Amino acid sequence: MDISNKTIERICRVFGVLNALGKSNIEFISSRDLAETTGTTDYSLRKDISSLGVTGYTRKGYNVGSLKEALGNKLALNKRRKACIVGLGRLGTALLDYEKFQEDGFEIVAGFDNSVNKLERIKTHIEVFADIYIREIIDKKGIELGIIAVPAEHAQDVADDLIDAGVKGILNFAPVKIIIPANIMYQDMDFTNALRMIAARLD
Amino acid sequence: MDISNKTIERICRVFGVLNALGKSNIEFISSRDLAETTGTTDYSLRKDISSLGVTGYTRKGYNVGSLKEALGNKLALNKRRKACIVGLGRLGTALLDYEKFQEDGFEIVAGFDNSVNKLERIKTHIEVFADIYIREIIDKKGIELGIIAVPAEHAQDVADDLIDAGVKGILNFAPVKIIIPANIMYQDMDFTNALRMIAARLD
Repeated sequence: MDISNKTIERICRVFGVLNALGKSNIEFISSRDLAETTGTTDYSLRKDISSLGVTGYTRKGYNVGSLKEALGNKLALNKRRKACIVGLGRLGTALLDYEKFQEDGFEIVAGFDNSVNKLERIKTHIEVFADIYIREIIDKKGIELGIIAVPAEHAQDVADDLIDAGVKGILNFAPVKIIIPANIMYQDMDFTNALRMIAARLD
Repeated sequence: MDISNKTIERICRVFGVLNALGKSNIEFISSRDLAETTGTTDYSLRKDISSLGVTGYTRKGYNVGSLKEALGNKLALNKRRKACIVGLGRLGTALLDYEKFQEDGFEIVAGFDNSVNKLERIKTHIEVFADIYIREIIDKKGIELGIIAVPAEHAQDVADDLIDAGVKGILNFAPVKIIIPANIMYQDMDFTNALRMIAARLD
């Protein structure tokens, strides 16, 4: 199935909203309300959903549980995925215990850092390892996703190690562009660029 | 000047790359290399730049310093902006000392939290305050940007307080959609959605 990145982005947001609604025991939502909550229009939302071959709009609106299930199946979002974090500075340790990941089906099962000192001082319930064990642990635990939180100058090396070790997707928090083979899924979180995009619209 | 969000996003990335190149004392860059580093095509890059009325492509490529200057002037990115962070949990404190912000012209001048206990324990060189002082400090220090790092259930209240206090832009790290008036610039950093977008492309 060939789905555009924009559609995937919107559907992922819809999935997140449905997840939250489900936890609040909300059973139905109108397409207009769902569109508004996800920052899109009624028309695009319906189009995105029907482009996945998902139906199920009733007079009461979409059934939250079954729409979530159907979209999740189409985009393999119902599967739990294991992830690791490399770089346990302030940002990395904050991410290590970021509860939202767990709630949404992403299980952080390991943290790595090159400083044994830092590893000894970290307080977390997640297992942490020296980064020389990246390959071994990724393999042993079946980790599919790697989250990079090292300084910019080490990000490319860490990405290469993670890919060698077999991860299929990378989320990069280091403020630098890294080169990733086309078969590896990649997203970056560039905080500074987000601030710039805000500033660019100011006087 | 009416510039699309997509163009602004790309130009902001270009600006970030030029900033980094400038620090490494690189004087010229070809449009192809610049496009590649920012993840776009040569054609779109030139189009984006010329849509701002900026010229200056020479046989040696773009002059890094003057292109940065020109784009920065067009999008008001050369101006230093003051920002504050509300919510000093793990993520908030990590952001408080995030050096990249400073390097790129964003100066974090205050942190806020509702827990006096937390404020006393925080180690940072940034001034921190109880959140009842948000309005006073924003006004006194001339803070234009607010960064939200509180739990999801408090994000909307904090956003309302920041806007009441006069910030013009908000960067939201809380994993929830918040409602913002149209005259306030807004970006969110949804980590979980980024992981979902990766997962959606996997088997």
